[in-house]
Amino acid sequence: MDVRELVGQARQGRPRAVARLISLVENAVEHAENAANAAQAAGSAGGDPAAPAAASRTLREAMAELATGAARPHPARVIGLTGSPGVGKSTSTGMLIRAFRRRGSTVGVLAVDPSSPFTGGALLGDRVRMQDHATDPGVFIRSMSSRGHLGGLAWATPQALRVLEAAGCDVILVETVGVGQAEVEIARLADTTVVILAPGMGDGVQAAKAGILEVADVLVVNKADRDGVQTTVRELRNMTGLVETPWRPPIVTTVASKGEGADDLLAALDKHQAYLEESGEARRRRLARARDEIEAIALAQLRSRFAVLHGDRLDALAERLLAAETDPYAAADDLIAALR
Amino acid sequence: MDVRELVGQARQGRPRAVARLISLVENAVEHAENAANAAQAAGSAGGDPAAPAAASRTLREAMAELATGAARPHPARVIGLTGSPGVGKSTSTGMLIRAFRRRGSTVGVLAVDPSSPFTGGALLGDRVRMQDHATDPGVFIRSMSSRGHLGGLAWATPQALRVLEAAGCDVILVETVGVGQAEVEIARLADTTVVILAPGMGDGVQAAKAGILEVADVLVVNKADRDGVQTTVRELRNMTGLVETPWRPPIVTTVASKGEGADDLLAALDKHQAYLEESGEARRRRLARARDEIEAIALAQLRSRFAVLHGDRLDALAERLLAAETDPYAAADDLIAALR
Repeated sequence: MDVRELVGQARQGRPRAVARLISLVENAVEHAENAANAAQAAGSAGGDPAAPAAASRTLREAMAELATGAARPHPARVIGLTGSPGVGKSTSTGMLIRAFRRRGSTVGVLAVDPSSPFTGGALLGDRVRMQDHATDPGVFIRSMSSRGHLGGLAWATPQALRVLEAAGCDVILVETVGVGQAEVEIARLADTTVVILAPGMGDGVQAAKAGILEVADVLVVNKADRDGVQTTVRELRNMTGLVETPWRPPIVTTVASKGEGADDLLAALDKHQAYLEESGEARRRRLARARDEIEAIALAQLRSRFAVLHGDRLDALAERLLAAETDPYAAADDLIAALR
Repeated sequence: MDVRELVGQARQGRPRAVARLISLVENAVEHAENAANAAQAAGSAGGDPAAPAAASRTLREAMAELATGAARPHPARVIGLTGSPGVGKSTSTGMLIRAFRRRGSTVGVLAVDPSSPFTGGALLGDRVRMQDHATDPGVFIRSMSSRGHLGGLAWATPQALRVLEAAGCDVILVETVGVGQAEVEIARLADTTVVILAPGMGDGVQAAKAGILEVADVLVVNKADRDGVQTTVRELRNMTGLVETPWRPPIVTTVASKGEGADDLLAALDKHQAYLEESGEARRRRLARARDEIEAIALAQLRSRFAVLHGDRLDALAERLLAAETDPYAAADDLIAALR
């Protein structure tokens, strides 16, 4: 099947075409990582330099077709869900899938959490629960195991979102594990970022310290049938009370495993969506996302050139750095000069 | 104080000079992030484009001085510690500090975990415990809150390591939170990567799925006074038994809060160090680290050029992408062309 045909089928919402296009994105990240790592492993015979180029030619064609084709009347709403392992991110994602489906919205799910049941990382019970949606033609679920460093997530996610949007998804839920860099990246990608917490363990304090609160548009305290929920809510309320922004993140309590709080969460999401549109913030976020995507692709292309075309020079510079014959900044300048 | 003097004082192991140099590294990351973000925020007046350049001039001078100065007889041993929140990473770090100090080694600690007590993220009790080492002139503790995306960790950590090595540290412990990208990055930076787990919760399975086991040189099951430790050890043994590599990661049980297992852990670390030297892997890892550092600096420089020098072009390309007038790959090519 040629690229145009594949894109055409994805536009009709054919799940297999959607899956193949997202695999193209994922494979391209992996190819680029492998090429860089293979070029790096001294004496390695692996890493066919032609392979990543070929993968990206198809991907380039697909993205060109998708990006410049007929525009949709409404862009998809991108909702990011993040939180520490164990707070119930996947259960919350499941609850939101059902809630949006009840409204008749088509839902895409992109799981970039390696411990998520969507990516095969969780226990069997969870995976079985996800099968609920396997036969629903209004739900597209895809996982991405983008573990590579240097912005693999920033590079791949917008492209996967474009595929799901073209397939007609009204809402796209992006689930990431929220410790460290991921939640910052997702906040830049999503229209609305939902930070999920669970009661106890000073989770609120931890979240604040880790900077998670800075990126939250909506705060969810899940497992609200457990002890300590009021303490956590109070802690969060004190923290969000200090924030001087036009949008103060609402705090919603849920018991996602029982579907409790789904309506409240949906209402909070809608309120944020309305704020985004009214304030012009929606367009600003979409522009930032486009900017990030272009920049991430450019940097990935440059990194691939360093590894594939200038691997020998990089090796020689690394040897000289170890031998104290150069310093890292002079070596980097030398590497950049190789691009010319 | 000029840069040469500052570096001279750091070489004598003066804590304040060491701290100032590492702050230089950290500030440069933050400047670069802020510049990129400020350039991105439409209509923002912030982000003095001269500021990051100035910050990196001092840093460049310092790194040139450090990298090409008199080489030390032995490079520092870099030991990475990673694991999910709650497994006892910081307590284990504390146990290792004491163990290496008993041997007379000088120890540096670099905490890049936002929830670590070293970075101020944990509860008061932990922080008080860390004060144990505050008055020991043989211990340097520094935290880095490098939360930025696109390889902030890959960029900053090798430079901070160079400062601690110059200050005479025999051993440098790098602590990161181990969910997602961080543990892959640290494995590329460290000579030995220690993955810490705790019994229960199918932690072993989770670790395997998340790819943590792939990067482990030594596995620690901490909190070994709890139920389920034998199950976790058995699970891990089954998994590492499948690995066909010249080095099979040993599994050590510890109760770090009581200092139990410190000698076993030290023995496992020494055995891995001996393996690294005998196999030539030590040199290979140091070369890979130098390569990564040079590449990360080059990419950060290029990213900064995109943001500062070509921000308008990037904005215009993002507008065209949203309007379906270009595709992301063509836009990225256009951006790269601006570098010429």
